[in-house]
Amino acid sequence: MIPLKPNEIQEWEEMHEERLVDLEEMIEQYLPKERGQQKIVIEAMNYSMMAGGKRVRPRLMQEAYYLCRGHGWIVEPFMIAIEMIHAYSLVHDDLPAMDNDTYRRGRKTTHVAYGECMGILAGDALLNYAYEVACTAFTSCVVDGIAMTDRYKMAARAITILAKKSGIHGMIGGQTADVEAEKMEEITKEELLFIHEHKTGALIEAAMMIGAVMAGADKERVAEMEQVGHVLGLAFQIQDDILDVTGTEAELGKNVGSDDKNNKKTYVSCMGLEAAKAEMERLYMEALDMLDKYGSESESIQVYIRDLIHRKK
Amino acid sequence: MIPLKPNEIQEWEEMHEERLVDLEEMIEQYLPKERGQQKIVIEAMNYSMMAGGKRVRPRLMQEAYYLCRGHGWIVEPFMIAIEMIHAYSLVHDDLPAMDNDTYRRGRKTTHVAYGECMGILAGDALLNYAYEVACTAFTSCVVDGIAMTDRYKMAARAITILAKKSGIHGMIGGQTADVEAEKMEEITKEELLFIHEHKTGALIEAAMMIGAVMAGADKERVAEMEQVGHVLGLAFQIQDDILDVTGTEAELGKNVGSDDKNNKKTYVSCMGLEAAKAEMERLYMEALDMLDKYGSESESIQVYIRDLIHRKK
Repeated sequence: MIPLKPNEIQEWEEMHEERLVDLEEMIEQYLPKERGQQKIVIEAMNYSMMAGGKRVRPRLMQEAYYLCRGHGWIVEPFMIAIEMIHAYSLVHDDLPAMDNDTYRRGRKTTHVAYGECMGILAGDALLNYAYEVACTAFTSCVVDGIAMTDRYKMAARAITILAKKSGIHGMIGGQTADVEAEKMEEITKEELLFIHEHKTGALIEAAMMIGAVMAGADKERVAEMEQVGHVLGLAFQIQDDILDVTGTEAELGKNVGSDDKNNKKTYVSCMGLEAAKAEMERLYMEALDMLDKYGSESESIQVYIRDLIHRKK
Repeated sequence: MIPLKPNEIQEWEEMHEERLVDLEEMIEQYLPKERGQQKIVIEAMNYSMMAGGKRVRPRLMQEAYYLCRGHGWIVEPFMIAIEMIHAYSLVHDDLPAMDNDTYRRGRKTTHVAYGECMGILAGDALLNYAYEVACTAFTSCVVDGIAMTDRYKMAARAITILAKKSGIHGMIGGQTADVEAEKMEEITKEELLFIHEHKTGALIEAAMMIGAVMAGADKERVAEMEQVGHVLGLAFQIQDDILDVTGTEAELGKNVGSDDKNNKKTYVSCMGLEAAKAEMERLYMEALDMLDKYGSESESIQVYIRDLIHRKK
């Protein structure tokens, strides 16, 4: 890509801020109504979902969708669904039997606010509701130019990707390996890579792939997006590890140094801070290289990734 | 239905035993391989799934499928998926922050065997894997006589039902109301009904409906099956409550009197034992009445329900 001028970068950044504002509104519209005898669990779900944050996975999905020339709103249920899956994983990760965290994004964690029992049920509810929301893609109103049968196939493919990347061969697999690694004195670089690729990488791959699938992209394009997601997921996680060491609690809204406290294996603890930073930059360039062939169509996602990887919180 | 002769009932019972044996084999084939850095969570999942039990939900789904003249195996992924959802709900229900149970079906509960952290993750993994398995219905080999597009629509409808009935407006909604009711001195009959209809009833309704959907039944038929499931779910739960009072630990493989210990609200504690028994029989007859119009086609499911409702464990 021809390097963008500062004012062009700024224009994209403003656009991304608008998209994030719109996304927050959209999320709110998709939240279940807090009523009935089960009201409390819905409150806990919505509390977890409305904690703000960067909304990285739905935003990346949207950027991939636009990159693959998606239009209209058929990607919307999947943007919400993937954020719900991310949110549930945080709620359960924070539980006393897991990382036992009290604060997240400057607020009490869900089980601290609603009790441990509701923390468990709200996590379950978010995971399940993600699939409920994703299923609305089957029945939503007919979209211009997309035939009924194609929409079924696209949505079926997208749900399949979401389920695979969220489960034991994706995110949950990574969470498990992460928990197991805490008990070990040290782990190999391959083992660390497995954790990162699965715990964080898998959902980011899913975001990129589903964006492409719902835009009607072919298999090769979807595989390319998976590759971009792969590299990006690693770079994103390394920056997370770096911020846990270099960031401040005020910036991050959570306890820093928590990786060290929990004996978490990270790129920083395994390779040192400088090597981790270099690896992150290398992966970032690799992602940009893969997007270069899309020419000016990829400007938006390139700026998005640039800011995401170099975030300060 | 003309009353069946004892030898006819016995023939169906033998058939049901065979179907249960086949189902156990089928479940085993669908379990994920225990390997990789995430091996431990898969072991915990499979431990939870291989605890035996009555397999009520997949067996009911299969009986509804046959009743609606389903043939072939396209219902199979959903039979497995619904049992995985049931299994995850038990794993999480047993956790220390929930019912804190040590034994189930004569074996240690999952978190006792694998630790609380793996109890949480294995439950999550089972719930998510249920959707992975259900999604295979989209891509499984073409089935005789069922066009591609129809299969997509049927599977999409079935997953949608599964997700709705498992979530906050179904099973999880009931679990939440149940937990909340434990804190109360007493609850109304309507509140108790809500708990039973959702916590137990919703998945049984889902089983009946999905069996019909995957057999290609029309909307009216599916709604009828939901009704049968509704009545049946209540009768099933009342018998559960009765057995918690009248059963022995050896028969049930779990602690009896646990409802009382946990201040659970049940039909027995609210209405007394005799009234609960009468209500169960009334609901049983109602279910049979609804199935009567299917004539001899409904023999199999009628015998199945008869034995299910009058089970001793």
